[in-house]
Amino acid sequence: MKLEELLIDSLTRAAAQVFSTMLDVQVRCGSTSTERGLPQANDGVVSFIGLAGAWAGTGSLACSPVMACRICSQMLMTEQTAVNEDVLDAVAELTNMIIGGVKTDLEPHLGQLGLSIPTVIFGRNFKTKGAGGAEWIVTPFFWDEDALLAKVCLTRSEKSLAHATVLDPTCHLDF
Amino acid sequence: MKLEELLIDSLTRAAAQVFSTMLDVQVRCGSTSTERGLPQANDGVVSFIGLAGAWAGTGSLACSPVMACRICSQMLMTEQTAVNEDVLDAVAELTNMIIGGVKTDLEPHLGQLGLSIPTVIFGRNFKTKGAGGAEWIVTPFFWDEDALLAKVCLTRSEKSLAHATVLDPTCHLDF
Repeated sequence: MKLEELLIDSLTRAAAQVFSTMLDVQVRCGSTSTERGLPQANDGVVSFIGLAGAWAGTGSLACSPVMACRICSQMLMTEQTAVNEDVLDAVAELTNMIIGGVKTDLEPHLGQLGLSIPTVIFGRNFKTKGAGGAEWIVTPFFWDEDALLAKVCLTRSEKSLAHATVLDPTCHLDF
Repeated sequence: MKLEELLIDSLTRAAAQVFSTMLDVQVRCGSTSTERGLPQANDGVVSFIGLAGAWAGTGSLACSPVMACRICSQMLMTEQTAVNEDVLDAVAELTNMIIGGVKTDLEPHLGQLGLSIPTVIFGRNFKTKGAGGAEWIVTPFFWDEDALLAKVCLTRSEKSLAHATVLDPTCHLDF
């Protein structure tokens, strides 16, 4: 299986499962696309979490303030109408669980990966850019008409090339 | 040595060294403070990179658009007057090198850590928040009158608690 297919499969499965088990919501998955690491214009709520090991990358969620409030309301079973600390923490937790699911899915193929701590950004008209030109897998998920974009990018760590087989005997080198 | 002192030492040393060797600039280090993971208001350029292993965390740089352009101009030896793709990539690279230096400094004490891929954000009046209530070490560095804030937070990975000594025999448990 190609890395791209593996990432799409993992992301789709993890997002659907986390929405279902954590929020009791069935999300509809849209068409996956890929994008290069160009500066992206953003409005609303965007989260990032790092993946690191023999492979390194980033997972990210992006949604409107309305969707972020809806996620938090469902998670905490309280009505949230504005993006406050609880809403940002709810999006951080969703990021942690979805990208944590991706990590667990990837590890049998890529070796052990670590997950960092999520950061959440909220604003209007801000730009985000991943380092270098790594390709991102981007899949939209729909909860009724509200969309959430889930993204992940992953590249082989430079320093791991020489040591991959020593540090991590399960790291397959067939990508 | 306490974790906090170790983080302050590593961050100060890594930032000074990277500015010196990469940009040929001597920066002045200001007073370190700590902050809890409350939502922070930002203007300008902010970067994030993940640290992951038996300990997980985030490193971050924050500066004005003027400082970001100055860093890029010095790095690429070209005149940059507006925050474009090259400027965002320069801040990403600086983040990678400074937090990479912190990682190398920490590993003899905390065991092997992975470094994710940096993300850079540029905008006005956007909020950022790290997950949970982890404490951040915040140190300002001054290049003449232009400031750059370097931050790092690190907490023990939940899942690593049970396996730390198995997965990583060098992980000291004295914090």
